[in-house]
Amino acid sequence: MALSQGARGDSIKLIVMVKRTQESRFGESAPEALPNDIAEIFVSNHAKLGFIPNVFHAYGKRPEHFRAFMHYHDVLMRGPSDLTRAEREAIVVAVSSENRCQYCMTAHGAALRVLGKDVKLAEQIANNWRTADLPPRLRTILTFASRVNEPGFAATDDEIAHLHASGFSDEAIWDIAAIAAFFGFSNRMAGLMDMRPNEEFYTMGR
Amino acid sequence: MALSQGARGDSIKLIVMVKRTQESRFGESAPEALPNDIAEIFVSNHAKLGFIPNVFHAYGKRPEHFRAFMHYHDVLMRGPSDLTRAEREAIVVAVSSENRCQYCMTAHGAALRVLGKDVKLAEQIANNWRTADLPPRLRTILTFASRVNEPGFAATDDEIAHLHASGFSDEAIWDIAAIAAFFGFSNRMAGLMDMRPNEEFYTMGR
Amino acid sequence: MALSQGARGDSIKLIVMVKRTQESRFGESAPEALPNDIAEIFVSNHAKLGFIPNVFHAYGKRPEHFRAFMHYHDVLMRGPSDLTRAEREAIVVAVSSENRCQYCMTAHGAALRVLGKDVKLAEQIANNWRTADLPPRLRTILTFASRVNEPGFAATDDEIAHLHASGFSDEAIWDIAAIAAFFGFSNRMAGLMDMRPNEEFYTMGR
Amino acid sequence: MALSQGARGDSIKLIVMVKRTQESRFGESAPEALPNDIAEIFVSNHAKLGFIPNVFHAYGKRPEHFRAFMHYHDVLMRGPSDLTRAEREAIVVAVSSENRCQYCMTAHGAALRVLGKDVKLAEQIANNWRTADLPPRLRTILTFASRVNEPGFAATDDEIAHLHASGFSDEAIWDIAAIAAFFGFSNRMAGLMDMRPNEEFYTMGR
Amino acid sequence: MALSQGARGDSIKLIVMVKRTQESRFGESAPEALPNDIAEIFVSNHAKLGFIPNVFHAYGKRPEHFRAFMHYHDVLMRGPSDLTRAEREAIVVAVSSENRCQYCMTAHGAALRVLGKDVKLAEQIANNWRTADLPPRLRTILTFASRVNEPGFAATDDEIAHLHASGFSDEAIWDIAAIAAFFGFSNRMAGLMDMRPNEEFYTMGR
Amino acid sequence: MALSQGARGDSIKLIVMVKRTQESRFGESAPEALPNDIAEIFVSNHAKLGFIPNVFHAYGKRPEHFRAFMHYHDVLMRGPSDLTRAEREAIVVAVSSENRCQYCMTAHGAALRVLGKDVKLAEQIANNWRTADLPPRLRTILTFASRVNEPGFAATDDEIAHLHASGFSDEAIWDIAAIAAFFGFSNRMAGLMDMRPNEEFYTMGR
Repeated sequence: MALSQGARGDSIKLIVMVKRTQESRFGESAPEALPNDIAEIFVSNHAKLGFIPNVFHAYGKRPEHFRAFMHYHDVLMRGPSDLTRAEREAIVVAVSSENRCQYCMTAHGAALRVLGKDVKLAEQIANNWRTADLPPRLRTILTFASRVNEPGFAATDDEIAHLHASGFSDEAIWDIAAIAAFFGFSNRMAGLMDMRPNEEFYTMGR
Repeated sequence: MALSQGARGDSIKLIVMVKRTQESRFGESAPEALPNDIAEIFVSNHAKLGFIPNVFHAYGKRPEHFRAFMHYHDVLMRGPSDLTRAEREAIVVAVSSENRCQYCMTAHGAALRVLGKDVKLAEQIANNWRTADLPPRLRTILTFASRVNEPGFAATDDEIAHLHASGFSDEAIWDIAAIAAFFGFSNRMAGLMDMRPNEEFYTMGR
Repeated sequence: MALSQGARGDSIKLIVMVKRTQESRFGESAPEALPNDIAEIFVSNHAKLGFIPNVFHAYGKRPEHFRAFMHYHDVLMRGPSDLTRAEREAIVVAVSSENRCQYCMTAHGAALRVLGKDVKLAEQIANNWRTADLPPRLRTILTFASRVNEPGFAATDDEIAHLHASGFSDEAIWDIAAIAAFFGFSNRMAGLMDMRPNEEFYTMGR
Repeated sequence: MALSQGARGDSIKLIVMVKRTQESRFGESAPEALPNDIAEIFVSNHAKLGFIPNVFHAYGKRPEHFRAFMHYHDVLMRGPSDLTRAEREAIVVAVSSENRCQYCMTAHGAALRVLGKDVKLAEQIANNWRTADLPPRLRTILTFASRVNEPGFAATDDEIAHLHASGFSDEAIWDIAAIAAFFGFSNRMAGLMDMRPNEEFYTMGR
Repeated sequence: MALSQGARGDSIKLIVMVKRTQESRFGESAPEALPNDIAEIFVSNHAKLGFIPNVFHAYGKRPEHFRAFMHYHDVLMRGPSDLTRAEREAIVVAVSSENRCQYCMTAHGAALRVLGKDVKLAEQIANNWRTADLPPRLRTILTFASRVNEPGFAATDDEIAHLHASGFSDEAIWDIAAIAAFFGFSNRMAGLMDMRPNEEFYTMGR
Repeated sequence: MALSQGARGDSIKLIVMVKRTQESRFGESAPEALPNDIAEIFVSNHAKLGFIPNVFHAYGKRPEHFRAFMHYHDVLMRGPSDLTRAEREAIVVAVSSENRCQYCMTAHGAALRVLGKDVKLAEQIANNWRTADLPPRLRTILTFASRVNEPGFAATDDEIAHLHASGFSDEAIWDIAAIAAFFGFSNRMAGLMDMRPNEEFYTMGR
């Protein structure tokens, strides 16, 4: 889709028109103020999901932050990895639940329902991954993700050896930790902005 | 400085030659394997500091992660902000101390001594920011940074109102929180890799 | 409905026939072994819900415990009170979420969706009542319920005075505390038995 | 003893006459207001102990709650069980001590002195069961009771297997957990009402 | 009383003769090995109490430590102070209870019963000073003692100002803190040695 | 050096003349008010270090406390022991860091740099002993010291057996625990007095 400057403004205005209330503490960008590259992301997300996740609106106010956040997010969640995309979403939901992040539990809970294709397991992980009916590999992943989420985390040699013995490469271990820790960061940003989940997330994937 | 492929390889080999032991759990990139853009960052950092911080070696193994991490780091620590660079380093040191991150306390402790030009205060913040002889503005900043670092952080309206009343804009509040939370992420990555501080950091800025 | 001994056995057998796996650590009562009064409760619950909540199966193994538990439950959750039934379920969900009780979050999450007629708010309370969009009265209720749930809880005079000033009678305060504390007990029993939520709860009330 | 309505009122009035101060935050029932069945419990307890435990006065204000609480209490503490009555009181004292419940430590401390016939051990359990001179079976019991008392308790398969291997049946494990968890509930109700121990408890059983 | 070397040995032997079992993990000094000055303390304590507190036996193995400990103890507990001796024992009991020190709760619980002349209040403080029926001055003292006992304690200016406003001098504040912190040290030494309370303490002062 | 009464006063006045600001919350002794024995300690410390540590000034206000504290300190830190003086300072730094004591981290951090002759390791221990490059014997020592520092510490038989098996005698175990616990006491006194580190400590031993 070729997106001219004029067309962009119109598309974005259309997209946000239905939003009535401020969805995060610091407000959101005016559609006109969005730089081209970010506007395109809005449009393509709207095309894919039917709505713009509120985290985009919130970060849109500061384009440099938007770009840095979304790029790192995509490296971790969509880049090459030994972890499946559903496993990565499971990490996000488990950590966000431990951190009780309202926005992330809802948005990534929806993503996990969609990617994991198991509504019941997705709910169980959101409630408490420790008592969820997890397959062994996912239990190992979430056990380590939860360790990373602890304040003052520093991995012991025994933990790393255990993960190696369970079939995880250095890169897979790195990915578990990076996703868990990055969403510890993201959870706090959502907590800062009192980010509200979009209505659509509550029913998505059910 | 125009850096040809050949010259780059030589520069990097020279730079890392003095390192004898593995400085993080997952090892480091072979100089030859570094992509050009990252090799240039190595060279320019060596030119500025006289050494390559071990965090560069560690992330160098995965170039996409290197780029995402360093870019976000630079947006937060060097981008436009109401916070001075010394104030930002003080946030990093205070949070890294709460999280007891060996690498970050040492590396950013050095940076704070250099940027803050007050060795004694830098040490006090590394020990315990609460009992450090802080100017009022920095006490407000670190009090909020420490709140953000708590597990399950979600800002209350009262906290935000108090920060506004103390003269902090939405953007400044965002920056305090983003730096505190990003380094909570970074602390965990250093803890994952058991990253060792470079010798040079111990004496820098004294 | 008059329920003869023979008819009872048949009804119960029919009801449990569809269950294939053991739903709690200590197993469940054989339908034949259920005393009459408990069998009637099974039948009437099945008539109302279309299934028997697994907590009934689990407690059914020890009829005296079944009776004591269900009676106290009904006094608290259905007896006369200044609290609405939806408010009472909100207490159960908030406390069960703090205690991360897999069974209770799912079963009472469903009940709250049905009784509270607000799916979104029910989800928010299950995620984190503190950042949910609560009306002021419910915020006061859940704030106190969460206090009661703390280890070593003992109410201060100030807390009670604040609740009185917010319009809560001694009886209402008692009910908030009794429901919160009773479900702290119930959460632990579900955690003891590793009680699994019925499938039906996941979709009920959506 | 046949207890006519008139006689009951007189007995109760006599019994409570010596009480001078309000013994819990929400007060206590007027003797005249007690229903017959509860009045009989007052009279029989007075006959046995020489006084009415303040928990009876406190719950007497709400007869339905009194009945539900006392019935469940009796199922757990006096019903059939693999645990001796002294072992059950030891659980109550250990848990109430962890929860620092003023009323329960005093009242059940007295009961443990009487039932356990070992004043020194009863004191040690009230102080800290971990460093008390416990026989191995009681150490196993209290170790598990203390686990149940943790916030967010969910038993692991290993814990249950260890208890089985130590000679505890499913029913005995259930009883340990149910008593520990029920008194976590009871401790919080005493903390709600700021329940004061009767003077008699301090010297009973010494 | 003039105590000759020979007489001393005999007195001590007589005193310890009745002890049958090792009362702390590292054992105790042979009576013959006690230096003169410490032997005299044993004799005088036996004369006063009728027994030797096990803490004396435990420290007697290392005379220099015995002297340093007992001297500091006496400066704090018997030296000049704005605090009464009963108030000082109340601090010891409250802190030892928070630290769950088996020996100190028993030994100093007995001392508090004797010095405070209020068995019930002494028991309440041992159970939980927060819910004890404390006079306001003692509540202020124990509130601060408990603060000092927190890990990482550093007094705020507000706390000190509050204590001044409540009538406490710098020296009284110092004494509260020093007693609370010294017994945090002492509690840990008793925990190290698994020190057992003398039988006599259980009944003393009742 | 023979120190006459007159000479003492002059020496002390000279020594403290350079101090301009109050270095602890409760102030410090006037030089004239110091008893002879304490004045001599001031003079000899000044001769050795070139300054008087502020802890001496703070305790100087109450000579009996000064003597008891310094005597116990010297028994533990300079008396006969299986632990080297550097190992003892490492315990102090590790515990003071866990307790975040501003004064003790600085003063004993300096002492550890001097006695341990390893600036880098001293810094690492001050940052986080767990991730420091410790030799195995020192890791064992600090692991146990940290255990002692936990609230409610009571050693288990297994811990003591492990220490014995690692080559530590009863006396060495005692010394580790006594130093760790004594400085838990000392940290709290420094926190009470808001004791400020002398400037000299920041550079000493680098």
